[in-house]
Amino acid sequence: MLKQDFLFNFANVWQKAEIIKIIEYMEIKERLSALRSAMKKNAVAAYIIPGTDPHASEYIADHWKEREWISGFNGSAGTVVVTLDGAGLWTDSRYFLQATEQLNGSGIELMKQGVPETPEIVPWLTATLKAGDKVGVNPQMFSLNAYASMKAELAVCKIELVSIDLLSDIWTDRPELPKSKLFIFDEKYAGISVKEKLDRLRNELRNNHADVFIMSALDDIAWLFNVRGKDVNYNPVVIAYALVDEKNATLFIDADKVNEADRKALQQQGVCLAAYDAVLEAIRTLQPDASVLVDGGKLNQSLFEAIPAGCTIRNTMSPVFKMKSIKNAVELEGIRRAMVKDGIALVRFFKWLEENVRTGNLSEISVSDKLYEFRSKQERFMGESFNTIAGYAHHGAIVHYSATPESDSKLHAENLLLLDSGGQYLDGTTDITRTVALGTPTVQQVIDFTRVLKGHISLATAIFPVGTRGSQLDILARKSLWDECQNYGHGTGHGVGHFLNVHEGPQNIRMDENPVTLQPGMIISNEPGLYRTNEYGIRTENLIHVVCADKTEFGQFLKFETLTLFPIDQTLIDPELLDNKEIEWLNEYHLRVYNTLSKGLNEDEREWLARKCTPIKVQR
Amino acid sequence: MLKQDFLFNFANVWQKAEIIKIIEYMEIKERLSALRSAMKKNAVAAYIIPGTDPHASEYIADHWKEREWISGFNGSAGTVVVTLDGAGLWTDSRYFLQATEQLNGSGIELMKQGVPETPEIVPWLTATLKAGDKVGVNPQMFSLNAYASMKAELAVCKIELVSIDLLSDIWTDRPELPKSKLFIFDEKYAGISVKEKLDRLRNELRNNHADVFIMSALDDIAWLFNVRGKDVNYNPVVIAYALVDEKNATLFIDADKVNEADRKALQQQGVCLAAYDAVLEAIRTLQPDASVLVDGGKLNQSLFEAIPAGCTIRNTMSPVFKMKSIKNAVELEGIRRAMVKDGIALVRFFKWLEENVRTGNLSEISVSDKLYEFRSKQERFMGESFNTIAGYAHHGAIVHYSATPESDSKLHAENLLLLDSGGQYLDGTTDITRTVALGTPTVQQVIDFTRVLKGHISLATAIFPVGTRGSQLDILARKSLWDECQNYGHGTGHGVGHFLNVHEGPQNIRMDENPVTLQPGMIISNEPGLYRTNEYGIRTENLIHVVCADKTEFGQFLKFETLTLFPIDQTLIDPELLDNKEIEWLNEYHLRVYNTLSKGLNEDEREWLARKCTPIKVQR
Repeated sequence: MLKQDFLFNFANVWQKAEIIKIIEYMEIKERLSALRSAMKKNAVAAYIIPGTDPHASEYIADHWKEREWISGFNGSAGTVVVTLDGAGLWTDSRYFLQATEQLNGSGIELMKQGVPETPEIVPWLTATLKAGDKVGVNPQMFSLNAYASMKAELAVCKIELVSIDLLSDIWTDRPELPKSKLFIFDEKYAGISVKEKLDRLRNELRNNHADVFIMSALDDIAWLFNVRGKDVNYNPVVIAYALVDEKNATLFIDADKVNEADRKALQQQGVCLAAYDAVLEAIRTLQPDASVLVDGGKLNQSLFEAIPAGCTIRNTMSPVFKMKSIKNAVELEGIRRAMVKDGIALVRFFKWLEENVRTGNLSEISVSDKLYEFRSKQERFMGESFNTIAGYAHHGAIVHYSATPESDSKLHAENLLLLDSGGQYLDGTTDITRTVALGTPTVQQVIDFTRVLKGHISLATAIFPVGTRGSQLDILARKSLWDECQNYGHGTGHGVGHFLNVHEGPQNIRMDENPVTLQPGMIISNEPGLYRTNEYGIRTENLIHVVCADKTEFGQFLKFETLTLFPIDQTLIDPELLDNKEIEWLNEYHLRVYNTLSKGLNEDEREWLARKCTPIKVQR
Repeated sequence: MLKQDFLFNFANVWQKAEIIKIIEYMEIKERLSALRSAMKKNAVAAYIIPGTDPHASEYIADHWKEREWISGFNGSAGTVVVTLDGAGLWTDSRYFLQATEQLNGSGIELMKQGVPETPEIVPWLTATLKAGDKVGVNPQMFSLNAYASMKAELAVCKIELVSIDLLSDIWTDRPELPKSKLFIFDEKYAGISVKEKLDRLRNELRNNHADVFIMSALDDIAWLFNVRGKDVNYNPVVIAYALVDEKNATLFIDADKVNEADRKALQQQGVCLAAYDAVLEAIRTLQPDASVLVDGGKLNQSLFEAIPAGCTIRNTMSPVFKMKSIKNAVELEGIRRAMVKDGIALVRFFKWLEENVRTGNLSEISVSDKLYEFRSKQERFMGESFNTIAGYAHHGAIVHYSATPESDSKLHAENLLLLDSGGQYLDGTTDITRTVALGTPTVQQVIDFTRVLKGHISLATAIFPVGTRGSQLDILARKSLWDECQNYGHGTGHGVGHFLNVHEGPQNIRMDENPVTLQPGMIISNEPGLYRTNEYGIRTENLIHVVCADKTEFGQFLKFETLTLFPIDQTLIDPELLDNKEIEWLNEYHLRVYNTLSKGLNEDEREWLARKCTPIKVQR
C-alpha cells in the first residue's frame, strides 16, 4: 500500500493502471524469490503449483489460489513450475492471450500447451533437471493418482517427487477459508433422506469389501448429506471432508458453519460433526488393518499419505459419484419445474433483447446482467450455475469466452449472439445455450446453424442399447459437420447436478473414451457447435435425460428426453437442409415448449413465444 | 487300437459310432486321471488348459491342441480347468450345443460363458480352492499380460499361480509340429524389402528406448521377413520366433523348413537363422542390462520368464503390428487386383447358384465347395482365407455357423443364403459376405436387409477427422437398426492382412473401446448384420480402406474407399427406405463393380452382372 501511494506521486491518472501492474510484477518477483529460498533450504530443484484445491474442485476458494498468487495468472486452467533459475506457466490456447498479458514482466515463461513444440511438464522437468534432483509439490493439491503417475514418470529419470508445502510459510496474508453457513437441503427437493443414502453407500462399501470411505469431493459430500452452501462461486457446496464406515458418518466441517438446528437435523440422520482440520488425524487413526475405499482421481495425496500403512487400499470410482449421477423421481420432477421457470425467464429476456437491440446501448455484459435479473425473479432461484458466456459476433467463436469490461462488445442489429447460461434453483440446475441472429443472418450462418441443429436433433432422438457409452453416441452430434470436413473442439455433453455442480460426472458424451455407460436417470448436455474464427460462433444446447425405450429380442434400449424448454431461432434454420424426421422433431419440440411455458406468461409474452414456436411445414 | 477292435466284435455297424464315442470318453477319463496324478505330485490344486498356442494364434497347429486332447472339445474358443475332483470347460454360446455333445460322458462340466449364473474362471477358482493352494498353467499358453492379471487376481485370495507344464509328460503321442516349407514372399507383392522394414523397426526400437524386440506373433514375423508358409489353416504363416536388435535380426525356425536358396536370400536381407527351440536360450543370454521390448498381449509367459532379471522391460504394442496394418502402395494395388479376381469368381459362382438352386441338389457344403472351385481357378490363388460360412435360412442366424455333414442343409428356391467367404491370393487377402434371396423374399426380409444396407452405406460413406477410433464410427453401421431397437451381436469391422491373416489388428470397428486410431492405408471390414433366430440371417460385408479426405481449417479429414467388388442383391432392397444419397452410393458402387469386373467376363456373365448392377431410379 505504501509503495503504491509513493509511486502515485510521480504518475498521472493515465499511468495508474500501468503502475499497479508494475507493482504486481515486483511482488511476483519477490514471491518467486522467497519460494526459491525455501526450495534451496529444502534441497528442492523444482516446485510445481497447480491451480487446484484439496477437494479437486472446478471453482476454488481464494484461500487456495496458490498458482494465481505466485504468478498473477488467474485463468481457470494452468500450472506453474518454478526452478531455481527459471519458471514456466503451462496453459491451453484459451488463455494464451490472457497469460501473455498477465505474465509480462513476471519472469515466468508462457508454455503453450497443445502447441507441438511445447514439451509437457514432466518431459520438460526431466530435460531440465538432473538425476538425483527433487521435485516438490504440495500434496494437498494433487490427487493420489496424478501424484503416483508423476512420481513414476520422474523416477524413470531418477528424479524424486516429494510432498512438501513451501508456500504456507511465505504466503502470510493468504485469504481465510470461506465461512458460508451450511444449510440443509430439504428432502422435498432431494427426494431421498440422508439415512437412506447412507444405507445405499454402506451397501456399496460392502460390495467393494471396504470398511471405510474417505470423501473429499464437495459435491459428493453435499449430495450424500443433503447439505448445500455458498463457499465457492456457482457450485452450491460447503467446504468439508467426510468419513463413512459401517457405523459412523462423520462430516468434517468448521464448527461455526453449522447452526444448532442443522447440527441436530444431521445427527437425527446418523451424521456426526467434527472439525474440518480433524480429518487428517481421523485418517491417521483408522484401524490399522482397515480396508479403505478411496477415489484416487479425487482424494488428495496429503490425506492419502495419512492412511495407516497396514490398511488395504481400494482405489475405485467414488460410489457416491455414481449414485448421484442417477437422478431420483423427485430430483427429476424438480428439474422439470426448474426448466419451466428458466424457460419463462428466457422468454422474457429474449423478448426484451429483441425489443432493445436496436438502441445500440446493449453489450455482452449488460445483457448477461439483464438475464440474471429475469432469472432472479423466478421462485427458488439461488444464483447462476456458471459465469454466463455472452459472445457477440467474433467473440462467439472463442469457446470459453467471458466478457470483461475491456472486451465487452456493444450489440448491433446484425450478426449472431451466442448465449450460454444457467441457473441454480432449489428444484435443480439448468444450462442452456441459444444462438440468435440479431439481424438478418447470412446464408453461411444459416447453413452452419442448420448443420449444428441436425447434429443436436440426431443426438436428441438417438435410440441405443443398454451398455452404450457416451463416446459411441458423440458422432451423432458431429456427423452433419464431419460430412463437410467441419468440427468443434469441445465435448458434446457433460453431466449436470441437481442443485449442484453444472459439470458433474461420471458420464459424458465426448470424442474421448470414457468407460461409463449411460443409464436411465442420468442428465447430460447436448451441445454441438461450430466456430468461425473472427466471424461468429454457434452452439445449441439442451439438457437431455436418459430414459428407457423398448425391450425387444435384441435387448433393452434407451433414449433421451429433452428437458430444456426454449425455442430454437428459426430465422437461422434452412428447412431444405432438414429431413422430414428432423422437421417433425423441431415442430414437436416447439409445440411442447409453447404448451409448457405459455401458462406462466402474459399475453404479450405468449404471442411472442407463439411466433418463435411456429411449426415449419413438412414439404415432401 | 486293440481295445477298439475287441469291442467291435460285439457290435453291429449301427452301433460303431456310438462305441467310438464311448472309447473316446474312456480315453478322456484316463487322460484326466493322469493329469490329476501329475497335479498331486506337484502339489497343484487346479490346472488351466486354454485353447491357445505359444504364438497367440487364431488357428493353431494340432501339436498344441492341449485343450482338445484333454477334453475332446474342439471348438475354436474354450478353456478347461481341472481340479483334483472336478473339471469344467468355459466356452461361449456359439459352442453350447457342440460342447454339450462332445463333453457328454467325459466328467467335464460345461460352464456357459455369458450366462449370468456362470462364474468366470478366476472367481470360480477362488470359490473352489482355499488360501495357500496353487494353480498351474503351461506358461507357453498364456500371454504375459493374461498371466500377470490372473496371478494378481488369485493373489487377492492368497492363491498362487505357478508356471508348470504337466501335459508334455502324459501326452506322449502328441502330433509333430507342422513341417511346411517357408517360402519367400516376393518383394513385387510385398512392396518393401526386409532390409527397409528392419530399418523402420529399428527406428521404432530407438524411439521406444529398446535394445531388442522379442517377436512371437506369426503374422508379424511373416510380414517383417517377407516370408510365408502353410503351417496352419487359412493363415499363410510359418511357425517361428524372432529377435531383432540394432545389429542382428534372427529368425528362429526349424532348419528343415528353409531351403538353401531362401536361407541365402534372407541372409542378403540381413536375417540370420537359428533353430526354433534356440529362442529360449537366446533370450536367457540377452545382455543383462538390455532394454527389451515385448508385446505383453502376445508374448508368452514362458519366453518372458526367460528374460534376464536385470533387463528393463518395455511392454507395449508390437511396432510391427502397427507398421503391418498400414498397407503400402504395392500391397494396395495387389489387394485391388485380388478384389477383381475374387469378384469374377463370385460372379461365376452366384450365376451358377442362381441357375442350379432349383435342382434341389445343392447344399451348404456343396456350394462352399463350388465357390472354392471357382476361386481356385483364379491366378495366384493360394487357398481360402477362412472356413466359408454358408448359412441357409435359420442357419444364417447362427453367427459363427460352420456346416458339418450332420448339419448340412439342402438349399431350396426360397428364403435367404448368407455366404461369408474369402480367398488368399499372392496379391492379397479377401473377405466378403453377401446375403441373397434364393426365391421371392418376404416383406420382413426386405425391410431387414435394407436396414442392414443403410448401416453398411453409412459407414462406407463416413468422413471423420484424423484421430478417430473405430468405436466412434461403429454406431454408423448400427443406427438404422438401433432406431428399431434391433442390433447384431458381433463387431462391425476387423483389420485384414495382405496375403496374411484375415483377422488382423490393431484397428477395428466395434462397440468396445480400442484406443487405436484409423489411419490412411488401413484395411478394415464393414459388415453389419441382423439375425432372426430360427428364421434367417443377414450380413453385408465389403472391405474398406482408409484414405485422406479434405484438409480444412478444422483439420485433416479421412474417409473410406470400398475395395470389395460384387453386387448387393437388389431383390432384397426396398428403395423407399433409402434416401437419395444412399441410392446414389448404391448406383455408383454397382456401376464401378460392373465396369471393373466386366472386362474379365464372357458375354453371358457380363449380361448376368449387368442385370445385378441395374441402377435404382432416384425418385425424389
